[in-house]
Amino acid sequence: MTLRCDVMLETRLDTERIRAARRVIDPVFLGTPLYRCEALEPALGCTVSVKLETANPVRSFKARGTEVVAGLLADNGARAAVCASAGNLGQALAWSGRGRGLDVTVVASRFATVAKLDRIRALDARLELVDGDHELARERAAAIARYEGSRLVEDSLDIETCEGAATIGLELVDAGPSYDAVLIALGGGALATGVGHVLKALAPEVEVICVQPLGAPAMTHSWREQRVVTTESADTIADGVAGRRPIPAVLADLLQVADDAVLVQEASIIAGMRMLLDHAGLVVEPSAALGIAAILEDRDRFAGRHVVTIVCGSNVDVDAYHRWVGATPGPRS
Amino acid sequence: MTLRCDVMLETRLDTERIRAARRVIDPVFLGTPLYRCEALEPALGCTVSVKLETANPVRSFKARGTEVVAGLLADNGARAAVCASAGNLGQALAWSGRGRGLDVTVVASRFATVAKLDRIRALDARLELVDGDHELARERAAAIARYEGSRLVEDSLDIETCEGAATIGLELVDAGPSYDAVLIALGGGALATGVGHVLKALAPEVEVICVQPLGAPAMTHSWREQRVVTTESADTIADGVAGRRPIPAVLADLLQVADDAVLVQEASIIAGMRMLLDHAGLVVEPSAALGIAAILEDRDRFAGRHVVTIVCGSNVDVDAYHRWVGATPGPRS
Repeated sequence: MTLRCDVMLETRLDTERIRAARRVIDPVFLGTPLYRCEALEPALGCTVSVKLETANPVRSFKARGTEVVAGLLADNGARAAVCASAGNLGQALAWSGRGRGLDVTVVASRFATVAKLDRIRALDARLELVDGDHELARERAAAIARYEGSRLVEDSLDIETCEGAATIGLELVDAGPSYDAVLIALGGGALATGVGHVLKALAPEVEVICVQPLGAPAMTHSWREQRVVTTESADTIADGVAGRRPIPAVLADLLQVADDAVLVQEASIIAGMRMLLDHAGLVVEPSAALGIAAILEDRDRFAGRHVVTIVCGSNVDVDAYHRWVGATPGPRS
Repeated sequence: MTLRCDVMLETRLDTERIRAARRVIDPVFLGTPLYRCEALEPALGCTVSVKLETANPVRSFKARGTEVVAGLLADNGARAAVCASAGNLGQALAWSGRGRGLDVTVVASRFATVAKLDRIRALDARLELVDGDHELARERAAAIARYEGSRLVEDSLDIETCEGAATIGLELVDAGPSYDAVLIALGGGALATGVGHVLKALAPEVEVICVQPLGAPAMTHSWREQRVVTTESADTIADGVAGRRPIPAVLADLLQVADDAVLVQEASIIAGMRMLLDHAGLVVEPSAALGIAAILEDRDRFAGRHVVTIVCGSNVDVDAYHRWVGATPGPRS
């Protein structure tokens, strides 16, 4: 069985390197909670477990990847790194770089979540804002890297970002897969290809389902058509997954490991955020509610099954969050 | 040094039994996140790490104790157990008992947090409400146990509840105590004596500070006067720590392990809840904000130090929570 999987699975990722990644990532990001949330289940009609990636110093899973990247850079004597980010990768790279003496530059859209930008600054990174969306930030980051000769960290393209995220998959497998499906937020693809690779390699019976907002569907359309499909715009509150130009190599990997890719409406994302707050006591950013949104939109598909949803981030602007979950902010201390 | 501590530390708790407890507790409750929350620090003036006890099936630390209790009961062929609870112990005992075929009865005040009562029912426990406070529930639970011949589980008095909670202390010590003080919510005393015992046994240089609401100060007054002091009433939103009649044996232990016990105002508890929501993305129940409240009320004491606060529970009524943190609930799906 193992042999057959090894033969069939031809992604850029390597299971042994993923195991090695687990040994270089700061333990504060590893061994995250995985637990059943029965209070969610009556409304969802299936067994739901949460893999919680928010209880760490950067409140998202992204540091699993940046720990690998920054560790390699430091080992190789690099001094600086630059990345484009909607906010979570930048915050994670700033955290990982700071501990290793790296100068980190993050390029972000000026429309990015303010709380994410504030945290990037607080972690001593240089922050540069572009007057456009994430794709423009990617172009600008590449230009800075060329000009300054610093390492460009490209989310999802750089294999370390995928293999770092893939350590979540190892933890899911180690927990003994009693679940039938894993719901994974799909943006650039690092999380989906990473976790998907490990599941297909070590627990191929588990269904790997990627979830993307209907307002930012480029990678899902690409997966369905088996070729890169770009979009002219992205319109979603799920800022962490709002790309428009899928990376061909990442798509190729995703085609190997994803059993399905589904699109969900904004209203479902918001309903998912509310449910996670009301019934699980979890504050999550929109991207982290995509899994619950997918269940809400297709209860029949999941009825009676055991589903794991990866709660991948909790960096939100407080006012926007209260607006989404249906409460208005009052006076704050 | 170890010898000296062993000689000096004369609590009912036993470090080796606590290590053994760790082996019988369901792993879903162990190895909880411990991480620094830098976003909290500018407002608090010290380094703050969170030990997060809410990301598990019962959203509080209480199952560490009930796992030990229920395991022993099942091993001894018991069929039923009863406890009084403000809600978290009852939920945890229901969870631990359900998995071991025990019939669990929980007695609670009819003024208890509705969300906690709902979860107790959902976990197949029998719930009995009394028209009074937690002390009346304790009396009623004892009467039921006598009448039915079932095991009465008494929070903080039963050594298993303390030694289960004490496994948090082992995890704090294992993480390598880089911190100067640990802030622990003080109610009946299981958490404080448990964690305090381990810290005093294995990391005696760490300051053990208990925090209780000014509106429910019985145990703190007892600790200060070194004798049991009861109060006529308890008035606090921190329902999990609202006892009025300290247990002598637990007080004796607390006198051995606590370096200090402080009282905080309701406004500080609410401010602490808000800060944990706004800056750490954590929904917590009032008891879990006591540590932050203590820092807010005495910034000078903690200035420049590294403090760990145990976030011990997140079971809140959604509407009350929104009221406390300054947001009003809107329409919900």
